[in-house]
Amino acid sequence: MKKRSTNLRIKLPVFLFVTQVIFVALYFAFVTYDEHADARFQTNQTNPMHNAIYKDYPIFTDIQVMIFLGFGCLLAFFRFYGYGGMVFNFLTATFAIQWAILVQGYFQFYHNGKIHLGVINLINAEFACAVVLISFGAVLGKTSPLQLLVMALLEVPVFAVTEWMVLKYLRINDAGGSILIHLFACYFGLGVTFVLYRSGLKEGHIKENTSYHSDILSVMGTLFLWVFWPSFNSALTLKGDDQHRAILHTFIGLSASTLTAFALSAMLNKNGKLTMADIQNVTLAGGVTVGASVDMMISPAVAYVLGMLGCTACMLGYKYLSPFLARRCRIQDQCGIHNLHGLTGLISCVAGICAILMADEEVYGPSLYEIFSHRAPVEGDPKLLELKMLVPGLQLGLGRTAQEQALFQVAAVFSTIGLSALGGILTGYVLKLPYLASPPDDLCFDDVLFFEVPADYNAPLKHGNNMTSEDSPALQHQRVFIQLMDNNEESKWA
Amino acid sequence: MKKRSTNLRIKLPVFLFVTQVIFVALYFAFVTYDEHADARFQTNQTNPMHNAIYKDYPIFTDIQVMIFLGFGCLLAFFRFYGYGGMVFNFLTATFAIQWAILVQGYFQFYHNGKIHLGVINLINAEFACAVVLISFGAVLGKTSPLQLLVMALLEVPVFAVTEWMVLKYLRINDAGGSILIHLFACYFGLGVTFVLYRSGLKEGHIKENTSYHSDILSVMGTLFLWVFWPSFNSALTLKGDDQHRAILHTFIGLSASTLTAFALSAMLNKNGKLTMADIQNVTLAGGVTVGASVDMMISPAVAYVLGMLGCTACMLGYKYLSPFLARRCRIQDQCGIHNLHGLTGLISCVAGICAILMADEEVYGPSLYEIFSHRAPVEGDPKLLELKMLVPGLQLGLGRTAQEQALFQVAAVFSTIGLSALGGILTGYVLKLPYLASPPDDLCFDDVLFFEVPADYNAPLKHGNNMTSEDSPALQHQRVFIQLMDNNEESKWA
Amino acid sequence: MKKRSTNLRIKLPVFLFVTQVIFVALYFAFVTYDEHADARFQTNQTNPMHNAIYKDYPIFTDIQVMIFLGFGCLLAFFRFYGYGGMVFNFLTATFAIQWAILVQGYFQFYHNGKIHLGVINLINAEFACAVVLISFGAVLGKTSPLQLLVMALLEVPVFAVTEWMVLKYLRINDAGGSILIHLFACYFGLGVTFVLYRSGLKEGHIKENTSYHSDILSVMGTLFLWVFWPSFNSALTLKGDDQHRAILHTFIGLSASTLTAFALSAMLNKNGKLTMADIQNVTLAGGVTVGASVDMMISPAVAYVLGMLGCTACMLGYKYLSPFLARRCRIQDQCGIHNLHGLTGLISCVAGICAILMADEEVYGPSLYEIFSHRAPVEGDPKLLELKMLVPGLQLGLGRTAQEQALFQVAAVFSTIGLSALGGILTGYVLKLPYLASPPDDLCFDDVLFFEVPADYNAPLKHGNNMTSEDSPALQHQRVFIQLMDNNEESKWA
Repeated sequence: MKKRSTNLRIKLPVFLFVTQVIFVALYFAFVTYDEHADARFQTNQTNPMHNAIYKDYPIFTDIQVMIFLGFGCLLAFFRFYGYGGMVFNFLTATFAIQWAILVQGYFQFYHNGKIHLGVINLINAEFACAVVLISFGAVLGKTSPLQLLVMALLEVPVFAVTEWMVLKYLRINDAGGSILIHLFACYFGLGVTFVLYRSGLKEGHIKENTSYHSDILSVMGTLFLWVFWPSFNSALTLKGDDQHRAILHTFIGLSASTLTAFALSAMLNKNGKLTMADIQNVTLAGGVTVGASVDMMISPAVAYVLGMLGCTACMLGYKYLSPFLARRCRIQDQCGIHNLHGLTGLISCVAGICAILMADEEVYGPSLYEIFSHRAPVEGDPKLLELKMLVPGLQLGLGRTAQEQALFQVAAVFSTIGLSALGGILTGYVLKLPYLASPPDDLCFDDVLFFEVPADYNAPLKHGNNMTSEDSPALQHQRVFIQLMDNNEESKWA
Repeated sequence: MKKRSTNLRIKLPVFLFVTQVIFVALYFAFVTYDEHADARFQTNQTNPMHNAIYKDYPIFTDIQVMIFLGFGCLLAFFRFYGYGGMVFNFLTATFAIQWAILVQGYFQFYHNGKIHLGVINLINAEFACAVVLISFGAVLGKTSPLQLLVMALLEVPVFAVTEWMVLKYLRINDAGGSILIHLFACYFGLGVTFVLYRSGLKEGHIKENTSYHSDILSVMGTLFLWVFWPSFNSALTLKGDDQHRAILHTFIGLSASTLTAFALSAMLNKNGKLTMADIQNVTLAGGVTVGASVDMMISPAVAYVLGMLGCTACMLGYKYLSPFLARRCRIQDQCGIHNLHGLTGLISCVAGICAILMADEEVYGPSLYEIFSHRAPVEGDPKLLELKMLVPGLQLGLGRTAQEQALFQVAAVFSTIGLSALGGILTGYVLKLPYLASPPDDLCFDDVLFFEVPADYNAPLKHGNNMTSEDSPALQHQRVFIQLMDNNEESKWA
Repeated sequence: MKKRSTNLRIKLPVFLFVTQVIFVALYFAFVTYDEHADARFQTNQTNPMHNAIYKDYPIFTDIQVMIFLGFGCLLAFFRFYGYGGMVFNFLTATFAIQWAILVQGYFQFYHNGKIHLGVINLINAEFACAVVLISFGAVLGKTSPLQLLVMALLEVPVFAVTEWMVLKYLRINDAGGSILIHLFACYFGLGVTFVLYRSGLKEGHIKENTSYHSDILSVMGTLFLWVFWPSFNSALTLKGDDQHRAILHTFIGLSASTLTAFALSAMLNKNGKLTMADIQNVTLAGGVTVGASVDMMISPAVAYVLGMLGCTACMLGYKYLSPFLARRCRIQDQCGIHNLHGLTGLISCVAGICAILMADEEVYGPSLYEIFSHRAPVEGDPKLLELKMLVPGLQLGLGRTAQEQALFQVAAVFSTIGLSALGGILTGYVLKLPYLASPPDDLCFDDVLFFEVPADYNAPLKHGNNMTSEDSPALQHQRVFIQLMDNNEESKWA
């Protein structure tokens, strides 16, 4: 494996230029403006201030900050892989969004032979991008930018097809994307990392650690995600009270998981101190856990409880399940996405199903049939006319009962997990192809492989030899190892 | 004092779980949605786009950025206390907001046996949280997370009661919160730090300094606060031209104080250089100084002058008053909140009173009685009908004259200062209770006490012994001290 | 030159206080509220929610983040000049905005003897500020804060006059500001740096490099700019579909230039690695390139192509043109603004002209005469009545043909370049005046000159002497030089 070149000089440009030419060709052939962006669709009746941009764009910028700054900083937590975390996130996100505009456009916004483009497409594409970035977390530091791009190239269509099938045929309630985004991303990522298993990293890696500054940077990423998560969870709800509830529940859920994470972090640490990794990740669990029921009338108290439950599951997952998966199941889940997105996502699905089963007109009023639109009566049902009086814009539904809807949710969970895990495993095999510049074991988690780095990038370790003798033997070993590498790596890997 | 354990393993989880159980119980018993978030309140007349969320949520996210990223980065300025500044801010803010939702909810949003929750409550709770975080500035680095949580637990109710009394009985104009937020927070914090006086830190502390990176991080925090401060000051004004003015005045005031801060920083430095602490703090003075009159017709020029005045007072406070308070009054005000929030808040109150005294119908037109709503006529006043023609939505007032309103403002200032100082002193005594993990003097301003820190956290100092002999003796002493500590602290404090 | 003092103790306060007194006097004499901020203009017909603040303020905060955090972090990329980049950006931006409020106010918002102030003025002033900050990029690290303030003092009026002339007499389409902002800023900055040429820096400067953390910080700046650029480019378009297109095109253009930048960065690097400077700068090229045609019906595909073209020109400029300009034309363009704003701006102008020539009613419908308002018929034209039926709010135009409009665009490009270059050269001569604290060559790119710096600010280099012998000779030379300087500079420059 070590013989394969990791030089990007030809591979990366070839991949990017080929895909960009294809993107441009598809744009020319198929992409036009939607009715809110096309000058021809504006008439003397159009009020420019009613353009969809004014309700979509603020949400869009919030999610942009989450994707580029939130994920970017959060993934920059490795001491020698800050460039990798932040910059590969930038590259992968940009690529995934453009690709998702085209692929999702074909499935969701295609009519009259054209994909119709507006800011709403960008929001959808950013969700697809979030899926890719979550999966990225499973293989952070162990993949080349080329592998990440290939992963995005394959994951986006699998996601778009799954999304399309689930929304068109199963028709589920999942406003915050717990099923479609978090579970999909998690099991796809686990599938990829399962195939990319590196036995050489079984005992950990010498550079798999953080620095004082990288930890602070990563907390900033957490805070960007924390602050704007209500926008993420409420982006695709119905407008009005539904969106209002989604914002409240997300905020409460995040707060509950934050307080719980601090409690558990101190409790589970043998020195009774706080661990930065917990604060960077586990605090966010509540945002996922409230996802599937985020727009429903679950009550603020239940949102609080969901935040606490999700956080507890996530924390125990980091402590006990992740090591188990790595040791026994050959699943090296670098950022613990199975804890932050998988376990919490499953709890969220269960909560969503309970909320669906308990939903009735007493609590929701007639707008029950708007939120659970598939429970609205079918054409010809006498109840339809009566409801149309109370809810003027009511759409025709499928006449489902609560139980039926719950079963479809269950079906969605299993089919999403199945499709994503399968897609992830197949993608993993593609990523093992030669010529994708996969990093050798000893240069994982190391920016020197793919970046020109400044002189100080590993300075603190270089000067380590005047550290006191109090240092742990592991640290001393690490230091010597890295100094050896410094002397050799440039010639070997350049 | 040194004998007391600072291990958080039991204390922090016990405190957090107990309070969380109480929070959840209160949520279940008392919290429901307000009419903008409750599905049952939506009728066929409801336009979802008129939901309060669309005017409240953008302001809310701006303030969220200020609270979590602005304060978080700003407080991370200590070289060895970056985790503490940013992470304890995260913990304390989250806790304070949840607690404030309940306590303020009881005083302001409680009817029919329920607290009615919407995003507007969250905005109010973030103001209460800002109060706690400002007070936190006075004791930064000298308190355990447990002490900070207890402080929030006590400060939020005292603040909520003061706010409720002042707004219900004194009925003042204070759109930017100069009285209720800044003065309250300042004198509460000073009360706490007065009681927590540490004679051992009289000569300063060896770790009470910054690093190159922590200073830059802190400036980023300043910039987050600077950029979004207009949203903070205008969040609770009347909509329309009032909010417009609040934004203009805040922006102008901040700009004036920024330019003045640079001038004074160079002028008061003996080498004629700029000092980062000035840029981090004093530039923000204008945002506080315009607060009490921020929505009034004070003219842009006066906003400019207020920014300059506030900045000058703040700068002189840092230079001369803070050292005096520390030496003579046993008030160790770590971040100088008395300069940035106290002195500027007092100037703001005076400016607000002048603006109230000079307000008349010639300048404001009939909307005088909207902005100064307590000057609107009482029921039965013949002027009322006439005004109702000009201002359709006019509320009944108290028929106060300008002079009367000014007197109530003065009363509010004194009662706020009194209550907050008293509350702060009592809180200080509670924080001195044993079992709250108060840090020993020598481990103040040091992340090693409450966090697992990476190997490089104090690396630059460790390698200090090959520094040149040009270093100041103070610096050399510091270096030796820290090296000694490195050898011992882990065994002592783990 | 070395003999001149760089002590700011008197110079900076004198300059700032004098200008502030002038600002305040002008504010008192000439500045009042506009009709959206003045209480007297509100009648019983006014709907407060229709106040201009609600469409202007969200755009304003986005641009604020770009100016203060985006530019601030981006310019902090030098290893020893992080304070300078971020803090001088803060100072210069604040000063430029206040000055622009007054100067632009006189040209654009002056009637009845008063400048009428609203948030829309602030947005315009932030554009003027962006111009100054771009020009700042050409001389980063080689100018004192005083020189930067003088530059802003001179550049803002030259810009305001140019803007006023071009908009009033030439009447061009330039929604994203490619001509007025980017070309102006670029050639002004080049003019300044041409005059400030330093032969001593011909071979580069020993401190002209980055550190691991400064590079990450700078990428954060890039991401802030990237995320909010659509707001910048769409701030001054017509509302509705025009603004919607501007957002779409900017996002697509930026994405295309980002992907292209990664491809070219790896391709043009001899080791096949990525270069951080490319990722910090070249990724942004697309935002400029789509500028001049950003609101037109150019199709998403063309926006993509423009992003790729702009990026390619920018990258080749960095690689080949900038070194040539520095060596042969005495133009030391520190941040390469000629590549990111000049070359891309020129491409944008050409694209804009093509888009104007191809615009017809078939593509735009009757709103053609809104977007290209100067092509609308003149008073008396029979077509006018017909159009007024289709577009109720149509303004009278100048009856220009597409070709005529294109010629005016060409005229605008040349006159903007001419005026800005001339203004820049003259400004450069002013900046050479003594007493402006110009840094000596050896203390360029060094925070120690104008800031109190903490002990660790150049720590990694200080300890460099235990680096391995693998280091390049250049690096070794650098280290020795800096250690020598450390021993001497404090005494020399304090």
